[in-house]
Amino acid sequence: MITSKSNQKVKRVRRLLDSSKERKERKLFVVEGKRLVKEAPAEWVEELYVSESFYTFGKTDLSPYKTVEVLKDDVFKSLSDTVHPQGILAVVKQPEYLLKGLREGDTNETCTILLLDDIQDPGNLGTMFRTAEAAGVSGIIMSNGCADIFNPKAIRSTMGSIYRVPFIVDELVPAIENLKMDGFCVYGAALEEAVPFREVEYPLHRAIVIGNEGKGISTSVLNSVSERIKIPMKGKVESLNAAVSCAVLLFYLEGIQ
Amino acid sequence: MITSKSNQKVKRVRRLLDSSKERKERKLFVVEGKRLVKEAPAEWVEELYVSESFYTFGKTDLSPYKTVEVLKDDVFKSLSDTVHPQGILAVVKQPEYLLKGLREGDTNETCTILLLDDIQDPGNLGTMFRTAEAAGVSGIIMSNGCADIFNPKAIRSTMGSIYRVPFIVDELVPAIENLKMDGFCVYGAALEEAVPFREVEYPLHRAIVIGNEGKGISTSVLNSVSERIKIPMKGKVESLNAAVSCAVLLFYLEGIQ
Repeated sequence: MITSKSNQKVKRVRRLLDSSKERKERKLFVVEGKRLVKEAPAEWVEELYVSESFYTFGKTDLSPYKTVEVLKDDVFKSLSDTVHPQGILAVVKQPEYLLKGLREGDTNETCTILLLDDIQDPGNLGTMFRTAEAAGVSGIIMSNGCADIFNPKAIRSTMGSIYRVPFIVDELVPAIENLKMDGFCVYGAALEEAVPFREVEYPLHRAIVIGNEGKGISTSVLNSVSERIKIPMKGKVESLNAAVSCAVLLFYLEGIQ
Repeated sequence: MITSKSNQKVKRVRRLLDSSKERKERKLFVVEGKRLVKEAPAEWVEELYVSESFYTFGKTDLSPYKTVEVLKDDVFKSLSDTVHPQGILAVVKQPEYLLKGLREGDTNETCTILLLDDIQDPGNLGTMFRTAEAAGVSGIIMSNGCADIFNPKAIRSTMGSIYRVPFIVDELVPAIENLKMDGFCVYGAALEEAVPFREVEYPLHRAIVIGNEGKGISTSVLNSVSERIKIPMKGKVESLNAAVSCAVLLFYLEGIQ
C-alpha cells in the first residue's frame, strides 16, 4: 500500500491530472469514479488506483486490471477532484484515430461529422462529446485551440463518450477542404449572414462547425464552410451557449433522417 | 471613494454575493460587468459600484443611476468573481412575478411554460433561462429545490435573460395541476416509459418539465404530468446534460408551430 503523497506514482498521477503537456507527452489521461473506470476498455487501462476503503469494501472485481495500487485513503483523496471520492481512478491510454476513422460506420447512409473551433470551456467540450454520441455523430474534429479533451473536467462531462466517439485534433480549414472533396456539405453555425437552420436541405453526408463561446467561428474557418446556418432566436438573446447550439443542430439533423 | 474592504457597504455586497439567504431576505442580487449592468432595467438598480479606474476611464454614462459608489481598484477586485474585472457592478432588486404573469403574452397563440425540478447546477439553471428566452418560452416555474437563480454564476449564465423571462419558485405538483386545469398539456422529460418527443402532437398550450441532473424528475412530479416524453439516444449514452435536454425539447417545440 502507498502511504505517502510524495510517492513517485502518486506524483505522476497528480501531474497527469494537472498538466495538459504531461498528458500529451505520455499519451495518457486519468479517469475517476466507478462508472468511468468500468466503461474504459480494459486494454486501454495502464494503471488502476484504489483507496484502502474501496479495496476493502468496494465489491468491485479488479481482476481485469494488470496493476492495481492501493492508496491510503487520504493519499487517494489528494488525487481526487470530488468532495466524496468513490475511491477508484485509472490511468488510461489516449486513443488515436485517423481522419478516415471518423467515418467508420460510413456506408451510403447518413454520416454527420462535428467540427469544434476553439471551444474553451472543458465542461462545454465534454458535454458536446456526450451530445454528439447521443445524436449519432460519426466523429469529431477539434481545432488546436480547443481545450484539452483529456482535462479531468472535460472527461467527466463526456460521461464515457470519450471512449466511444472517434475524434482527432487538427487544423480545421484543411480538414473542411478534405471533407468537401469527399462530398460532404459543411455548415458553420453563425449569428449573421446565415440561413435559418430549418430552411436548409441537408445531404446525407454533412458536417457542422461550432465556434468559440465568445467569438464564434474564426474568419478563415467561416470562409471555408459550404454554407452558414443560424438558430433563430426570440427575445433579446444575442447568442446561445455553444453546447446548447450544438445540441439543437445535432438533434435536428438526427430527427430529419 | 471607499478605500477599505471592511467598509459596511462593501461587506453588504459581499454577503449578497455569498449568501442565498441574504439575497432572499433583502430581495436583492448582484450583477457584474458592463453588459449585465447596462441591460438591467434602471428602476431595478438600487446601488451601483465602480472601480476607480472604471470611474476615470470607463466612458460609461452613470447618470441614470441614483447612487454611484467609487471603490479603490483592489477593493472592487475583492468583490469580483473574475480575474480581470471590468470594474462595474450593481445591486439589483429581485423581480417578483405572479403565476398568471408567466403567461402575459398569452392570447390564442402558442404558450410554452418551462418547469424545472430541482436543477442543482447554477450554470445549468442560468443556461436554461437563456435558452428559454431564445426559444420563446413564456415563463419558468422552478421547484423549491432548484439552485438559487440569483447566485452570481447562475446570473452570469442567463446572459441577461434574468431580466426578461418571468419566473416563480413554487411547488411543482400544485403548479402542474393548475396548468392542467387551465388547459395546458404538461410533458415530463423522462428516460423510461416515455414516448419519443417527436411522436407527440403538442397543443398550443404546453409545459415541459426538466428534472434534476442526476435523479431526473421526482416521482410525485412525474406522476402528475399529462405525458412522459423522451429524447431517443444513440450509442451507449444513458442521459443528456439537463440544459441540453431542455434546449433540444424547447427548440423542437419552437420549430413545429
